[in-house]
Amino acid sequence: MIVVFKQTASDTDVDQVCEKIRSLGCNPLVMRTAEQITIHVEEIPGPEAGESLKRLRSMGSIDQLIMLAKPYERIAAKHSSRTVDVDGVVFGGNAVVLVAGPCTVESEEQLFAAAECVAASGASVLRGGAYKPSTSPYSFHGLGVAALEMLQEAGKRFGLKVVTEVMDPRKVELVAQHAHILQVGARNMQNYDLLREMGRSGMPVLLKRGMNARIEEWLLAAEYVATSGSERIILCERGIRTFETATRNTLDLSSVPVVKGLCSLPVIVDPSHATGRRDLVSAMCKAALAAGADGLMIEVHPNPEDALKDGAQSLPTEEFESLVPELKKVAEAVGRRIVAPVTAA
Amino acid sequence: MIVVFKQTASDTDVDQVCEKIRSLGCNPLVMRTAEQITIHVEEIPGPEAGESLKRLRSMGSIDQLIMLAKPYERIAAKHSSRTVDVDGVVFGGNAVVLVAGPCTVESEEQLFAAAECVAASGASVLRGGAYKPSTSPYSFHGLGVAALEMLQEAGKRFGLKVVTEVMDPRKVELVAQHAHILQVGARNMQNYDLLREMGRSGMPVLLKRGMNARIEEWLLAAEYVATSGSERIILCERGIRTFETATRNTLDLSSVPVVKGLCSLPVIVDPSHATGRRDLVSAMCKAALAAGADGLMIEVHPNPEDALKDGAQSLPTEEFESLVPELKKVAEAVGRRIVAPVTAA
Amino acid sequence: MIVVFKQTASDTDVDQVCEKIRSLGCNPLVMRTAEQITIHVEEIPGPEAGESLKRLRSMGSIDQLIMLAKPYERIAAKHSSRTVDVDGVVFGGNAVVLVAGPCTVESEEQLFAAAECVAASGASVLRGGAYKPSTSPYSFHGLGVAALEMLQEAGKRFGLKVVTEVMDPRKVELVAQHAHILQVGARNMQNYDLLREMGRSGMPVLLKRGMNARIEEWLLAAEYVATSGSERIILCERGIRTFETATRNTLDLSSVPVVKGLCSLPVIVDPSHATGRRDLVSAMCKAALAAGADGLMIEVHPNPEDALKDGAQSLPTEEFESLVPELKKVAEAVGRRIVAPVTAA
Amino acid sequence: MIVVFKQTASDTDVDQVCEKIRSLGCNPLVMRTAEQITIHVEEIPGPEAGESLKRLRSMGSIDQLIMLAKPYERIAAKHSSRTVDVDGVVFGGNAVVLVAGPCTVESEEQLFAAAECVAASGASVLRGGAYKPSTSPYSFHGLGVAALEMLQEAGKRFGLKVVTEVMDPRKVELVAQHAHILQVGARNMQNYDLLREMGRSGMPVLLKRGMNARIEEWLLAAEYVATSGSERIILCERGIRTFETATRNTLDLSSVPVVKGLCSLPVIVDPSHATGRRDLVSAMCKAALAAGADGLMIEVHPNPEDALKDGAQSLPTEEFESLVPELKKVAEAVGRRIVAPVTAA
Repeated sequence: MIVVFKQTASDTDVDQVCEKIRSLGCNPLVMRTAEQITIHVEEIPGPEAGESLKRLRSMGSIDQLIMLAKPYERIAAKHSSRTVDVDGVVFGGNAVVLVAGPCTVESEEQLFAAAECVAASGASVLRGGAYKPSTSPYSFHGLGVAALEMLQEAGKRFGLKVVTEVMDPRKVELVAQHAHILQVGARNMQNYDLLREMGRSGMPVLLKRGMNARIEEWLLAAEYVATSGSERIILCERGIRTFETATRNTLDLSSVPVVKGLCSLPVIVDPSHATGRRDLVSAMCKAALAAGADGLMIEVHPNPEDALKDGAQSLPTEEFESLVPELKKVAEAVGRRIVAPVTAA
Repeated sequence: MIVVFKQTASDTDVDQVCEKIRSLGCNPLVMRTAEQITIHVEEIPGPEAGESLKRLRSMGSIDQLIMLAKPYERIAAKHSSRTVDVDGVVFGGNAVVLVAGPCTVESEEQLFAAAECVAASGASVLRGGAYKPSTSPYSFHGLGVAALEMLQEAGKRFGLKVVTEVMDPRKVELVAQHAHILQVGARNMQNYDLLREMGRSGMPVLLKRGMNARIEEWLLAAEYVATSGSERIILCERGIRTFETATRNTLDLSSVPVVKGLCSLPVIVDPSHATGRRDLVSAMCKAALAAGADGLMIEVHPNPEDALKDGAQSLPTEEFESLVPELKKVAEAVGRRIVAPVTAA
Repeated sequence: MIVVFKQTASDTDVDQVCEKIRSLGCNPLVMRTAEQITIHVEEIPGPEAGESLKRLRSMGSIDQLIMLAKPYERIAAKHSSRTVDVDGVVFGGNAVVLVAGPCTVESEEQLFAAAECVAASGASVLRGGAYKPSTSPYSFHGLGVAALEMLQEAGKRFGLKVVTEVMDPRKVELVAQHAHILQVGARNMQNYDLLREMGRSGMPVLLKRGMNARIEEWLLAAEYVATSGSERIILCERGIRTFETATRNTLDLSSVPVVKGLCSLPVIVDPSHATGRRDLVSAMCKAALAAGADGLMIEVHPNPEDALKDGAQSLPTEEFESLVPELKKVAEAVGRRIVAPVTAA
Repeated sequence: MIVVFKQTASDTDVDQVCEKIRSLGCNPLVMRTAEQITIHVEEIPGPEAGESLKRLRSMGSIDQLIMLAKPYERIAAKHSSRTVDVDGVVFGGNAVVLVAGPCTVESEEQLFAAAECVAASGASVLRGGAYKPSTSPYSFHGLGVAALEMLQEAGKRFGLKVVTEVMDPRKVELVAQHAHILQVGARNMQNYDLLREMGRSGMPVLLKRGMNARIEEWLLAAEYVATSGSERIILCERGIRTFETATRNTLDLSSVPVVKGLCSLPVIVDPSHATGRRDLVSAMCKAALAAGADGLMIEVHPNPEDALKDGAQSLPTEEFESLVPELKKVAEAVGRRIVAPVTAA
């Protein structure tokens, strides 16, 4: 940490700050130049001391504090492992993982039709909402347990792993009994009690980026999960909120290489939610792969016109089928491959 | 609702959409001009039908759907009552309510010193965090139950109502036993399970605006609480996330008159969290009152330099004391008054 | 300036950077702690050396450069004078200046009706667009020279100073012959050739904040004008672009106290353009004064329903008349006054 | 256009609006449902009438106006031609065009080294700044005419077309004598006098997206150029300003397919300025091609550590050389090719 003084700071001010730093068990090193006085803190023993040092900010003589240490340890880039293994489906390896399925589980018929298609086309994970966050209390909120059971059954039948969102910490256990991966939705990225409960479950966690989250905050949310008990975390970029209105959110594909430089976790991309427009999904899937994404999360519905939620962004099954071969070409152009379809159990 | 067709839409397309609308129990009225074809839906029987109508969006011949009905009913502006009574402290009346206290409860000494000051200066509600959301898992997360007990005791001793944040739906009951108002923090504005649990408690709820929430989404979050059992909701503007870095967030004071035009709830403003800078709190408190705020939420700490969290934005007790008379002048200039100090029980 | 090295930097890396700094005529001071190595540059002789030092950023061993010196000198807060005198109308003194008039000059009848009203009600500066920036090439772009002549005449007749926007550097001289203050619109805040031409004119300049400008960039734009020949600069906050759609832009009133802490220039607020909604103008005018604004810029039209541009945000003359007494109360509550109407020449 | 009335609107209100619409030469068609009253305007004769109709917005009985017609005509998607031919280099065809070179022309040596490399590697257009927009008046602003001459010479020697930015309408003619394409920088996207002057020159124009511009505004800026005399317009996505700080701007690659759906112009992508980070350029170049970009604009410098501007985002020549073969693979994966190097004249 570096403490930068205001130009008006006196020697007494500097002495006071030094004393405060020593009282926190740290060693202050003063540096004076013609332009400013700064204090370097030699070593910060732990996060508590770091927290205490931040209190210096309110002293009148101080202009700014510059924090330099990386704030996440468990998921930091220095760790070599970059793969998350979900019962044999590996995120972060050479193979790109396709996660696909309907936004919301509506019926056995709908779910099974989607699952059959995506399994046949090359997806290895089935997505589908059992509990749906909705901006309005009057909207459809998902079929709950019934949907969980259908997802489990569809996964078994078509040889797919299952990922589904949990919004309530009291439902983590229940969902963990039916799914292979627990999803944190964008609205809940900073719901810390939920993150901790998910970590405690020891399950793989798919962590969507909050639509107003800076990349550092996203990684700190992952650190919550990691410190609570699960390091099998898959990040998912799904767009951020900006002033642009042509798309629902702005898909921030730069986050893919940025995140790869900062942490050891695999990162996938969800163009369906990011754009909110079916006609953009194909182009943005290809762009995500070219940017280095370790997987894609794509909404697929056997009949989008009848979808209970987000039909406007779902691909019909036949479009998904014809998209996968195109994705294979792009994956190969960047030295990756699409994982081969898993044979049903 | 108005359905607008693409310029390429054929008569068959229009017929298909009409049929679909009829199948949902609604009556379509077609309008053709030289520039476009539209269908008006005569009356939407309820939110479920509204939801179903939205599915039309995915039909290829449709350019856009225009939803016109206001999506919140319980809190809509048409309801006359605009006050929330918390055991005698009234939000939304002529008197402006001051909510003040430390960001986080750190000790009995700290909390009582702050409470004594703010009660003497004119505040009627004490704020203080028992459970604190923190971006990093390594930060301080609050004293929990011990803090709740101190808040309850401080409230009694200094004649203040108590507001404190709840983050976990499993803690709503516990917090409700110690506080007069349950606070939803900005990060949890769209944590729907939490909102519903709060509504079920029947307690007054202070709902902070999410830092990436449009005003309509904020009001829909309030509607969640209202439909779950509590209509005693106080809105709190606390800044939105923008590109500006001179302040922590951008305090959106225009939201105060906007919200007053759209709903029947009182709205207060928190300049401490919005700006993150103590030197801006005074100016923004005055501005908030002038804009029509029904109250202010201000962080006050007996010794901000030692604050465990957010010291940089907390007013020292003596600054709060000298601020209140200035606020009184601004309140009077817009025909309001600061509520008189409540005598301790 | 502080150079912070990556944790992987070697002694050779540090030596190389030191040598580079010396080659630019500066003196490097190395500081090593357990957590990082940094170099402080003792003194930067001038802006050119500062620019050259920034090139260090691309050296592979460097993590970040921290620039500490304030980048604007001419307008910095250290200068005591905070007033801009426009032929006797003073911005930045105790009196708050009202700038009012139509968005666009449409006819002599319209302009004179507006001017008469605002002069009688307490405004001392008349606004009105002769050259209008429009997002679409098919929109109305202003009456040009004819409007300039009407503005000059209206100013004389009703004892008002005149401010009007210039968009083209080739028009600066012409506009300077007709107006007392040259306005830079939000879209042109970083049109540097225009800023320089305005500075060269020696005229007072009203500099609107760009809708995507950080405060520091706004002040640097002012520095362009100041270094080109005019230090009579009035800043004008007019809202920034965010994700919120309830208002046209988000009025950032925090910028008023922020700017006052950073520079020596007066700052006024334009709630008409910021909100784009007539029903919000009154509340936001009051809030701006309470936040410390040195003036207000308000759109007033004798018949907003017929306005060629931006009628939705213009106050009818009668509403302006009844607003001013309310503004007086708020101004007095913060120790300011509204300037008395200037008597017509 | 559709006029939507407030729920409180009376029959008299509706009559008044109808009369107003008729007075503008348009035919109003009234539609009443249980939920709202609307008026459809049968046909809007031209942009002037459209502008006049917008004035209705300020009438008290009206809730909103819904504009449905696309506001750009010259560049609209209905026009079949999607290529811009610059003396044989074609943007928007099957071949992807590489535009590369230094941010700023610093010396003949620097420019020629960069030009030689990019020509040999497959670029067909040379970029380089002669006039540079800088946030600070104390920064380097480019070598001006000397740089223009060097660019012209480098273009000839290495068989490259030349693109360079113009900021001042008075410089359009001069720059047109030295370059093949005139560039509008992001800060000047809404500098309408400049856009018109560029259009009048009849030259090809490369129009960068403003960092706060919605896609529709960007296309309207292009329409300004098109209506002023040049329809040879190349759009360039270069990132928008958001809250994210890990990259300089947020590269909005979704804009590529969005723009292609809305207009007939080719669109290229500039990852160097968007990200501001050399280490992200390669990934984002590939992503841009996969998203469907018609070209790339890449900063290349023989020695980025010595760059006068933006060295941190420039690729060293050797990295550019090794990037091009990787880009070829991605281009081929989406059915495109990189244009073959043009032989020097």
